[in-house]
Amino acid sequence: MHLVDLNCDMGESFGAYRMGKDEEILDYVTSANIACGYHAGDPATMRKTVQMALEKNVGIGAHPGMPDLVGFGRREINISPQEAYDLVIYQMGALYGFVRSEGGKIQHVKPHGALFNMAAKSAPLSEAIAEAVYKVDPECILFGLAGSELVKAGKKIGLRTASEVFSDRTYQKDGSLTSRREENALIKDHKIAVNQVIRMVKEGKVKSVQGEDVVIQADTICIHGDGLHALEFAQYISNALREAGITIAKIGDFLR
Amino acid sequence: MHLVDLNCDMGESFGAYRMGKDEEILDYVTSANIACGYHAGDPATMRKTVQMALEKNVGIGAHPGMPDLVGFGRREINISPQEAYDLVIYQMGALYGFVRSEGGKIQHVKPHGALFNMAAKSAPLSEAIAEAVYKVDPECILFGLAGSELVKAGKKIGLRTASEVFSDRTYQKDGSLTSRREENALIKDHKIAVNQVIRMVKEGKVKSVQGEDVVIQADTICIHGDGLHALEFAQYISNALREAGITIAKIGDFLR
Amino acid sequence: MHLVDLNCDMGESFGAYRMGKDEEILDYVTSANIACGYHAGDPATMRKTVQMALEKNVGIGAHPGMPDLVGFGRREINISPQEAYDLVIYQMGALYGFVRSEGGKIQHVKPHGALFNMAAKSAPLSEAIAEAVYKVDPECILFGLAGSELVKAGKKIGLRTASEVFSDRTYQKDGSLTSRREENALIKDHKIAVNQVIRMVKEGKVKSVQGEDVVIQADTICIHGDGLHALEFAQYISNALREAGITIAKIGDFLR
Amino acid sequence: MHLVDLNCDMGESFGAYRMGKDEEILDYVTSANIACGYHAGDPATMRKTVQMALEKNVGIGAHPGMPDLVGFGRREINISPQEAYDLVIYQMGALYGFVRSEGGKIQHVKPHGALFNMAAKSAPLSEAIAEAVYKVDPECILFGLAGSELVKAGKKIGLRTASEVFSDRTYQKDGSLTSRREENALIKDHKIAVNQVIRMVKEGKVKSVQGEDVVIQADTICIHGDGLHALEFAQYISNALREAGITIAKIGDFLR
Repeated sequence: MHLVDLNCDMGESFGAYRMGKDEEILDYVTSANIACGYHAGDPATMRKTVQMALEKNVGIGAHPGMPDLVGFGRREINISPQEAYDLVIYQMGALYGFVRSEGGKIQHVKPHGALFNMAAKSAPLSEAIAEAVYKVDPECILFGLAGSELVKAGKKIGLRTASEVFSDRTYQKDGSLTSRREENALIKDHKIAVNQVIRMVKEGKVKSVQGEDVVIQADTICIHGDGLHALEFAQYISNALREAGITIAKIGDFLR
Repeated sequence: MHLVDLNCDMGESFGAYRMGKDEEILDYVTSANIACGYHAGDPATMRKTVQMALEKNVGIGAHPGMPDLVGFGRREINISPQEAYDLVIYQMGALYGFVRSEGGKIQHVKPHGALFNMAAKSAPLSEAIAEAVYKVDPECILFGLAGSELVKAGKKIGLRTASEVFSDRTYQKDGSLTSRREENALIKDHKIAVNQVIRMVKEGKVKSVQGEDVVIQADTICIHGDGLHALEFAQYISNALREAGITIAKIGDFLR
Repeated sequence: MHLVDLNCDMGESFGAYRMGKDEEILDYVTSANIACGYHAGDPATMRKTVQMALEKNVGIGAHPGMPDLVGFGRREINISPQEAYDLVIYQMGALYGFVRSEGGKIQHVKPHGALFNMAAKSAPLSEAIAEAVYKVDPECILFGLAGSELVKAGKKIGLRTASEVFSDRTYQKDGSLTSRREENALIKDHKIAVNQVIRMVKEGKVKSVQGEDVVIQADTICIHGDGLHALEFAQYISNALREAGITIAKIGDFLR
Repeated sequence: MHLVDLNCDMGESFGAYRMGKDEEILDYVTSANIACGYHAGDPATMRKTVQMALEKNVGIGAHPGMPDLVGFGRREINISPQEAYDLVIYQMGALYGFVRSEGGKIQHVKPHGALFNMAAKSAPLSEAIAEAVYKVDPECILFGLAGSELVKAGKKIGLRTASEVFSDRTYQKDGSLTSRREENALIKDHKIAVNQVIRMVKEGKVKSVQGEDVVIQADTICIHGDGLHALEFAQYISNALREAGITIAKIGDFLR
């Protein structure tokens, strides 16, 4: 049986500013990465997003980011591992407040944007993040880019980890994502994108841009929630995966 | 046996900015109200303050404030009860992250500054705050001004509540604090200040500025941590209370 | 000859968050109130909005607000006149940076949201704001609610002032706006709304909800830029005013 | 005649948080770099610092920093040149508001912390910063590390530039500062520190840690304002320079 989780960033509205079609997207994904107020999100948005996720039985994740609202957490900030540790605990805790008050629990943690990318390549940052998650809740699942330092650090400290793959990004022969600065970084054709993830889930392989197959672990697929066609693509990939015989399920329900 | 708790605001440093002599003051108080990043405090400061409080066996409290760093949470903001509910959960949760990662628990919640003052007079705000605390942790003790709406709201929802008194403020015959705009609002003589609280603790009474005795509940006494003589006064009141036969103890250890 | 200015709040996007159809609305208004980073707006948005306003020959205004991004500057904060003075200078100055670097000038200042509303009723706040504007640039026009303390304070210090009227709000017999808490506060019918402003501009009168006519000065009309039908209404009012023989012109071009 | 300017960071207090002995230090320096609210400072602090600098006839400088209050602007943020351009204009403009309202003018601009360090090594960042300064006020002097990209970019666009040297840092044979990660980065002996700057000012040379002399331009010396002995050192260096026959003067008064 082939199982995969679909995750999406959520709760990124802020005050009077709206972002993403969270309510609709929640019908198609199994895990929600909820912004915690640093790069996006605010207390009211966090509460509402937690409520919606609980209603729709979607796994709730903390989505801690850089303290950079105006940059949406996308700019690398030269933080120390200790600073990473502290900001993950703060944000994870803040979400915990809403989760506990609504009667749920935190299923996973997925760092956002620059924090996710920096952690992927840095063992010290990843170890600090993994330790933060472990100390707040050792039952939590840590999401990281497949093959990244974050996944390694999570396993090392004893957390369950979920290896994340992207449907709309191309891969290098060493298993890393092609940099967005390269022309061939993005897969714009939905069909090709979906076929890539189907193969990753079923065969554990992806064809790199160099033409060689690379072994890859695909526990969860990242869907983007804020584009124009986000909802449409969520529907499309969801149907295509099912048609390919893949069961879409909450990561917490099947990850060992 | 006369018991009272001594509480003090803590963890109000922010980044490169230092405030308060937390480490020294912690030797004299039994409950620490730890700022949670809205009016003061940052993740690193929260972690260190939680660690110090645990080492010194001081009760840990969340000290949620208005989202107003530049105003230090002292300016009234016309927030709705829903907004108060959300910001208490967020901040209490954030502290919970550090408390859990350090192996402790949150003993109490005390709103800060303008939030504390607005809640004292507003039943809807107080009910929202009390509900937030109750939903995150029904075992938590809610601190409020003696006789305030906040204490009433806490009792109503089923929380244990601690009635707070001030040593250095005068009281009106209705039991409220004399407004700081009045000349006789503050008690500057340490001896008079301490005698006032000794009587509040032992007899449950305070002499109002109008000359009449007022019945008052004194579970915890607020010490200021950021003045020039804060540490000196902490020592002084601590000794004076003991000499008067009053036992200073963590509120969580004796409050019914 | 009947002259009136049409003003609209602009530059309220923030980082990745979009708000308002500024580019399109700028084709219909003559004065733009540009957010300065406290309640909305960021440096990049300010620069782009200033550039667009200059291209379309629209009067540029500073739109200082409360330091409350999550509340969009709509929540009253109990600031002192000195704090109001300082935050107006800061925000007006910040906009001045972009205006000067793009080769323009600041035509006017209009406080935003809660700051606008609080100033309307408070002489000390209004005098502080008027002094701030005067000291940065005595040639600037100060926008205030018609009949408000802000207009009085502007005149008193020697600024040119523009009395602002609303098309979509009803008025009380004392010339104040009906509180939004009242059912009849808003005029939802576009035709009635526009006829109200036409009469204010041509006759200097408005019919209050009590049925009596009130004398009102109408130098500039506020258009809302962020609703669903904002653009549509901007077009509609612009056409209707012209058909009624009213010339829509930049306030700086005709105000004495 | 040997002339040099003494500059110091100022106005770094924030709300209830105090930093630096600005009033006292202003008696010894000739140029003040005033924080503009991004990495430190707030509107009230900016106003007071501008007032003090004007009273003491100290040159006023904008000290724009990274949008990182909790990190005090010391952490590198991966901003684009366009973002650097925008944040310099915003902050320089904000200071301009206070300078204009107090009847002064901006003498210079010196980027703070990580922005200063990143610009030193990056031509694109430096060019963006120089362009921002030039467009807001082409008469302004741009401060940069002696030999840095920032000084080059300032000259290129037509700004007057001031080459800054440090008394308490050692230099490499290529004229760069020894990294703070190296043991010999700091000069702790006041006498050696001062002799180093005296030679830089009089001979235009500094002895590198490798033992070779390096040619260096020394228009302005940076004094630190926030250490324990900041005031004492300001006095000491000020006296020592005068005794060595060097005239300490405002950069704007002697720079060609």
